[in-house]
Amino acid sequence: MIVDRELWRKEKEESYKRLWEDLEIGYLDEDLLEILLEFFKRPESFTKSSCSGRITLLDGPLPWERRESTIIFKKHSPITVDEIESLLDQPVLYRLWLVATGPIIHVITLTGREARRILRIAGKAGFKHSGIMSISKKGFIVELRTGIRLAALLKTPRGLVVSREGLKEAVRAANEALMKGKERLNRLLAELRADKSHK
Amino acid sequence: MIVDRELWRKEKEESYKRLWEDLEIGYLDEDLLEILLEFFKRPESFTKSSCSGRITLLDGPLPWERRESTIIFKKHSPITVDEIESLLDQPVLYRLWLVATGPIIHVITLTGREARRILRIAGKAGFKHSGIMSISKKGFIVELRTGIRLAALLKTPRGLVVSREGLKEAVRAANEALMKGKERLNRLLAELRADKSHK
Repeated sequence: MIVDRELWRKEKEESYKRLWEDLEIGYLDEDLLEILLEFFKRPESFTKSSCSGRITLLDGPLPWERRESTIIFKKHSPITVDEIESLLDQPVLYRLWLVATGPIIHVITLTGREARRILRIAGKAGFKHSGIMSISKKGFIVELRTGIRLAALLKTPRGLVVSREGLKEAVRAANEALMKGKERLNRLLAELRADKSHK
Repeated sequence: MIVDRELWRKEKEESYKRLWEDLEIGYLDEDLLEILLEFFKRPESFTKSSCSGRITLLDGPLPWERRESTIIFKKHSPITVDEIESLLDQPVLYRLWLVATGPIIHVITLTGREARRILRIAGKAGFKHSGIMSISKKGFIVELRTGIRLAALLKTPRGLVVSREGLKEAVRAANEALMKGKERLNRLLAELRADKSHK
């Protein structure tokens, strides 16, 4: 096996420390904590850079292009029309998108066997777009993600392109998307707790 | 290795036959043919169920939920406002979404080494959400996908939620998304042709 066990163990330790630091400074999504700890409990897994899902207001040419985009607003819980309405008055450079994304979790495993176990658990919890993204001496990087993703176009440099009803509906849909993501996280937690494959 | 070489070889042969059948009945996206053939030329790879990217008009609660959704319109090339405008008059059950998706290619490799080579090539071509989805005796299933995805809300049961300008802008954005996907396919073809790792 190409994974360097010592290197992997060191990274796990560091990631564990960082987890608690991130929690302390409010950088970590609290919704995720229990799940991340379940991964850390597994002898051959740990996690890195994870997100429980979020809603953003984004000014950019297309909603997946980060380089040219500016995040105007970001929240990990449901939003209201009032919260974003004042932001709609400001001028737009490219296009203003209301984007909702599902959870993403990166799990680093020591072995291929553990990577496959994680994929199986993730599949059962509805993380259908999960996969092993890379394999190196640092471990197997497994990305867990759902298909949940929504980008509603709200405004262009020429003005608003949605009606008042359209704005309300876009906010409603984004909140639904976010909640669907949280549901999948709950299922993931349950599947992780039910799993005995590493014991 | 757990992959059954004979089973894998048989599946490759069948997939190759199906590729030409699909092409004949117009089921295969012609944009993809050259790329798929590049994969088949590799001794340890073949492809299954692939899509060059498409634009759909979808009636459903949320744009990634296939079960409750109905596809009203589907096209693998750019669309015009005229093409979909008449479809907007019809009643909507849930929500009407204009969805653009980037290309998705499933590659089945014989070895983990080849799977990693494919991931490296895909990464260079901008298929940044690629990963090994499963490993079984049939092979390593590698999904190549980009982050390109756009769903614009057009209508609810209560009526249109976009202005005329909004509709035009949504069509424009969907076409841009589609073309960005085709660009990535061109890059993938170039990277595959430049790659000598299997030779």
